[in-house]
Amino acid sequence: MDMNETLDTHLQELRRGTVVLACLQLLRSAGYGYGLLEDLERRGFATDANTLYPLLRRLEKQEYLTSEWNTDEARPRKFYRTSEAGIRLADTLTEEWRALTAAIATLTAEES
Amino acid sequence: MDMNETLDTHLQELRRGTVVLACLQLLRSAGYGYGLLEDLERRGFATDANTLYPLLRRLEKQEYLTSEWNTDEARPRKFYRTSEAGIRLADTLTEEWRALTAAIATLTAEES
Repeated sequence: MDMNETLDTHLQELRRGTVVLACLQLLRSAGYGYGLLEDLERRGFATDANTLYPLLRRLEKQEYLTSEWNTDEARPRKFYRTSEAGIRLADTLTEEWRALTAAIATLTAEES
Repeated sequence: MDMNETLDTHLQELRRGTVVLACLQLLRSAGYGYGLLEDLERRGFATDANTLYPLLRRLEKQEYLTSEWNTDEARPRKFYRTSEAGIRLADTLTEEWRALTAAIATLTAEES
């Protein structure tokens, strides 16, 4: 594993968890996988279909998302929406992110 | 897996990566495992010896940390220090954290 690969691994570890938070927030308005994938990318949460689609199924199984098939159009699509438990999880994760951001800020403040 | 376990998993995923960043920043001044563990806990980066010690060895192997044995006291201790590459990694991770924080802030702003 060269330096660039280890850098990527550390960056991915830092990003992990933020996609869950972003999905839970964005799916307060119902959305389907591909549309969500585009939205996440546009907003700076780098992910891909192979990561996102299993994550959505996992969050549904954990009851943080609910789902419904929309068959109005030619191609049926599964729409996900954040459940009440999912909104609580999003709030908890947002709080934790703030606490970590404050902790990280103290590290950097001491450098100078 | 009940709701509390899945909550813990999601919290841990969010925290993962921040311990690497915290270690790299704190070890700009040389430190040893147990002292670092206490410092991390005091600063709000929850971790434990079983996670931290292998992480320090991994970061050393990846050349983000250097190490030296201090044998001045009765009990020899391995002191770690962040390398030049480690400082660059810490800077990159800090930048990424800021970008993610900005991205997360836009999600929450839209709620209200």
